[in-house]
Amino acid sequence: MESFSFYNPTKVQFGVGMIRKLGSEMMNAGVKHCLLIAGRGSIKQNGVYNQVMESLSGCSISVSEVWGVQANPTLNKVKEIISFAKEKQVDAILAVGGGSVIDTAKSVAAGVYLNDVWNAFTDVEKITQALPIFTVLTISASGSELNSNAVITNTDKLQKWSFTSQHVFPKVTFIDPTVQCSLPFKLTANGAIDAMSHIMEYYFSNNKALSTLCINDALLKNIVKMTDILQHNPSDLVARSNLAWSASLALSGITGIGMRGGDWACHQIEHAISALHPDIAHGEGLGVIFPAWVEYMSEKNPSLFLRWAKNVWGEDKVALGVRRARDKIDSWGMATSLRDLGIKENELSEIAKLIMHDSEVGGISKFRSHDIEALLMLAY
Amino acid sequence: MESFSFYNPTKVQFGVGMIRKLGSEMMNAGVKHCLLIAGRGSIKQNGVYNQVMESLSGCSISVSEVWGVQANPTLNKVKEIISFAKEKQVDAILAVGGGSVIDTAKSVAAGVYLNDVWNAFTDVEKITQALPIFTVLTISASGSELNSNAVITNTDKLQKWSFTSQHVFPKVTFIDPTVQCSLPFKLTANGAIDAMSHIMEYYFSNNKALSTLCINDALLKNIVKMTDILQHNPSDLVARSNLAWSASLALSGITGIGMRGGDWACHQIEHAISALHPDIAHGEGLGVIFPAWVEYMSEKNPSLFLRWAKNVWGEDKVALGVRRARDKIDSWGMATSLRDLGIKENELSEIAKLIMHDSEVGGISKFRSHDIEALLMLAY
Repeated sequence: MESFSFYNPTKVQFGVGMIRKLGSEMMNAGVKHCLLIAGRGSIKQNGVYNQVMESLSGCSISVSEVWGVQANPTLNKVKEIISFAKEKQVDAILAVGGGSVIDTAKSVAAGVYLNDVWNAFTDVEKITQALPIFTVLTISASGSELNSNAVITNTDKLQKWSFTSQHVFPKVTFIDPTVQCSLPFKLTANGAIDAMSHIMEYYFSNNKALSTLCINDALLKNIVKMTDILQHNPSDLVARSNLAWSASLALSGITGIGMRGGDWACHQIEHAISALHPDIAHGEGLGVIFPAWVEYMSEKNPSLFLRWAKNVWGEDKVALGVRRARDKIDSWGMATSLRDLGIKENELSEIAKLIMHDSEVGGISKFRSHDIEALLMLAY
Repeated sequence: MESFSFYNPTKVQFGVGMIRKLGSEMMNAGVKHCLLIAGRGSIKQNGVYNQVMESLSGCSISVSEVWGVQANPTLNKVKEIISFAKEKQVDAILAVGGGSVIDTAKSVAAGVYLNDVWNAFTDVEKITQALPIFTVLTISASGSELNSNAVITNTDKLQKWSFTSQHVFPKVTFIDPTVQCSLPFKLTANGAIDAMSHIMEYYFSNNKALSTLCINDALLKNIVKMTDILQHNPSDLVARSNLAWSASLALSGITGIGMRGGDWACHQIEHAISALHPDIAHGEGLGVIFPAWVEYMSEKNPSLFLRWAKNVWGEDKVALGVRRARDKIDSWGMATSLRDLGIKENELSEIAKLIMHDSEVGGISKFRSHDIEALLMLAY
């Protein structure tokens, strides 16, 4: 097992009705006036908005509101919200939504202290402080509710890039699994594939981190099982709870212990795809890329790919494991090829160019241009 | 899955040579003069003491020292150290040792602010602050390096009791697995059984916490496998690392997610035994009690006991799982009965009395006196 540092100070309040504790948690942290950041309004349909406002007003916390954060959240929106947060002089950020809303919230929380928030993504400015962040999660997918990462798209430059800073760990994250019972299955499956991808970005990095690998086997199988249940019964609360917690753990740091930071080539590839096609869901894109990546990579470290095929999919050949993974994704009604995603063959070279902003991609993949091109063809 | 709160802000620095970072971590936290608490001197043999002092002096942190904390650490020693800490006006506590040293450190860190430190164990006084705690772990067992619990024995009253307070989470924990390569196998096995017992205290509490159960299955199997390797090759660094990290996770909160707080009857029983016989190692005591507890309890929630037998031991009957567990403990050269531990039959009633300081014992066991007596006979 490689040396590692582990630190995750986010407090989680998980369970049915937990949102009622939001106000008191924020009050205990000294918050008086927060900025609520939300998406396109689904939280008004599913009752979450009312629960949030009730809990905040019960603790005399005043609220300014910004709406309209979209999937694949943009730098322009982040900048607009930073101006608003400064104008309103809020003392905390409250993200109510999924990964896009939380990543926007993190960028705003840090961005109010930066000359230009994009500098945090390009490593030009260092984040040294941020407003405290609270989150109420409405879809389990990105794991952003339990980590210190944010991913934002600069639409002018077609760059979907990320930053990490320990200043943006949420102070408290609220997860009420019942909130997700009304999600369309496609969104649930997107989230499940996203969470599995986070685990898989680490999985193949180190065959000596046995305590992490056995947890990762277990979580991958659990996510598949819970998603299968939810496909037929979206209100199954046991499955919702266990999928939600597995997805939060998937990018909490626990699944990457001793894994040298993981690979992340598939994420970089998918980020390029959805920078070009913001309508493609991150999870669905990953569901296309990852099986192709396993096929392409499996000769480099056969023992770990074989372990994955065996322990997660019950197969004794990597190719059969990949087939089982693709069949599963297909059975969830999701795309299994770039063609399915609506990408044209003549776009592949542009995608390859967007990916190769460094000379190499992936901690263990170490892909050069020709690898990326070959992989995209395999996924097509 | 039950509702839960999860919070664990301890930073872990894990790996070969990591102790060199101790000084800078303490300096960054503003520490100028710490109290080093240690056991009987093994850290002078294995080089840890020198590494610690070198790192501290490199960062101009001055050190006062207290030695002589023993297994099953005592209230008298805690009180003696509290006086010394006050006299020296230290601004942090540095525990260098195993669970006994760390639990002593936590009690001291909180105790300097209390009228009487035992009040924290009897719920008479509430802990509202503590000196910052840093730990350098020398044996993986108790998990105390990654949680907010402390267990201390009041030798006058024969009470081995515990407290929990979020103020005593270590700020930073250092785990260098090479440090443990020189441990006698008996201590390694004690630690492994202790860690397995922590997972098992949660395991049987809730059959709906599937994401936690699958992690717990994986960790239990992993601990057995790593311990088997270390029995024959104590310097196997992969096994040392993975056993160490599994043991830290075992009582970090992760294994108890959604488990209603777990049971803890076996720990209460073992604490009574080692309050009476301080020479009995906690892990070895648990290795005797737990299999008997599973036998006694398995009718109450057959599905989870069967899961345990199957997933951890590969058996399709609980009784066979128990036999496999006992055989494993025996193969490690550890006691498998109270008789083996040197306990006399006529002591059983006194032990039963020490256990029953509440009307019921165990979150799910809910043992009354007659259950305890029957269980002790079964374990004899």
